[in-house]
Amino acid sequence: MILYSYWRSTSSYRVRIALNWKGIAYETRAIDLRVGEQAADDFIAQNPQGRVPYLIDGDVRLAQSIAIIEWLEETRPEPPLLPRDPALRARVRMATQTIACDVQPLGNLGVLRRLHQQFGADQGATDAWAAHWIAEGFAAIEPMAAETDPYLFGADVTTADVCLVPQMANARRFGVDLTRFPRLVAINAVLRALPAFAAARPEVQPDADA
Amino acid sequence: MILYSYWRSTSSYRVRIALNWKGIAYETRAIDLRVGEQAADDFIAQNPQGRVPYLIDGDVRLAQSIAIIEWLEETRPEPPLLPRDPALRARVRMATQTIACDVQPLGNLGVLRRLHQQFGADQGATDAWAAHWIAEGFAAIEPMAAETDPYLFGADVTTADVCLVPQMANARRFGVDLTRFPRLVAINAVLRALPAFAAARPEVQPDADA
Repeated sequence: MILYSYWRSTSSYRVRIALNWKGIAYETRAIDLRVGEQAADDFIAQNPQGRVPYLIDGDVRLAQSIAIIEWLEETRPEPPLLPRDPALRARVRMATQTIACDVQPLGNLGVLRRLHQQFGADQGATDAWAAHWIAEGFAAIEPMAAETDPYLFGADVTTADVCLVPQMANARRFGVDLTRFPRLVAINAVLRALPAFAAARPEVQPDADA
Repeated sequence: MILYSYWRSTSSYRVRIALNWKGIAYETRAIDLRVGEQAADDFIAQNPQGRVPYLIDGDVRLAQSIAIIEWLEETRPEPPLLPRDPALRARVRMATQTIACDVQPLGNLGVLRRLHQQFGADQGATDAWAAHWIAEGFAAIEPMAAETDPYLFGADVTTADVCLVPQMANARRFGVDLTRFPRLVAINAVLRALPAFAAARPEVQPDADA
């Protein structure tokens, strides 16, 4: 199992958590997005979109973190990351997609660079842009978490938790006012201490800045 | 079954196709995003994110089009929208997420309005922004489709096709150069003629502009 990953990519961080959660050993191949390694010919040849994460699992080669996590869930179902009850699974996927579609894509490095190129946005402006979308997404998820404990959807860790922790790390980077999201902050603190989550943190990855 | 929908929302369009595909009767409740009906108190009270599509299916209430479609697939599996083979399912989800995460969220009405508010972007600039991300996403998907016929992943319609058709309609709206994507254009033409897809088109919805 080989994971192409960038230490500070929140989508890569999700897949690292899922692999750790399921006890799957993997080798990290670091792709430094800041210097354009994702556009190198040998990487593009196998992964035309040139993004991370990218997983090689035997003959299966996959981009897109949520597709990768669903693949891991189907092929290594234990321990699970989706509940068995279909209605609860649907709510978990709703929260997962809220982060994966409405938050993360608007704050990734390629988008922030495009804001700079097309609109001349400086760092302060791109930080404010990213913070805006994180706060919007968190405002949607905070009420979903209001009646559960200790995780986003109760007693079991799910793909929504797997997405929350990396996004919360980015929220802090971008200066989001987290006092509006006390449940998410509390749940994040519990999750971060779990070994599978702790080992996936950006700062302990082999390619992290010293 | 009640679907809150906006005729020109590509995410609503996806859910309409999936409901039609599975032969599920539903009632449309139109939410006009241009005049801010998504922020009305009675809508926000049940759907805090205030977005469409939003589905009421008995006791289950769901936002997020991909979560909704996975729910429909699990509870009404026939006719399917995901292949049975896990590796092929994973590739279908990869293409689905490429549109759902990397394309659609960057071109939706809320994002284009924010570009105007924060950066003073005019219509030409927001159109160019949306067209850029559609072209990037289509460039990733075109090679995935290169060896299949007649649909994106071969003989059976999948969630990737359900996402392609609405995104292709938007690509035309935003003036994307489609000559780079001959496979996607050909597959889209076949899909659009299928009854489930034809009945979901924006222009035949009850809330479409006259």
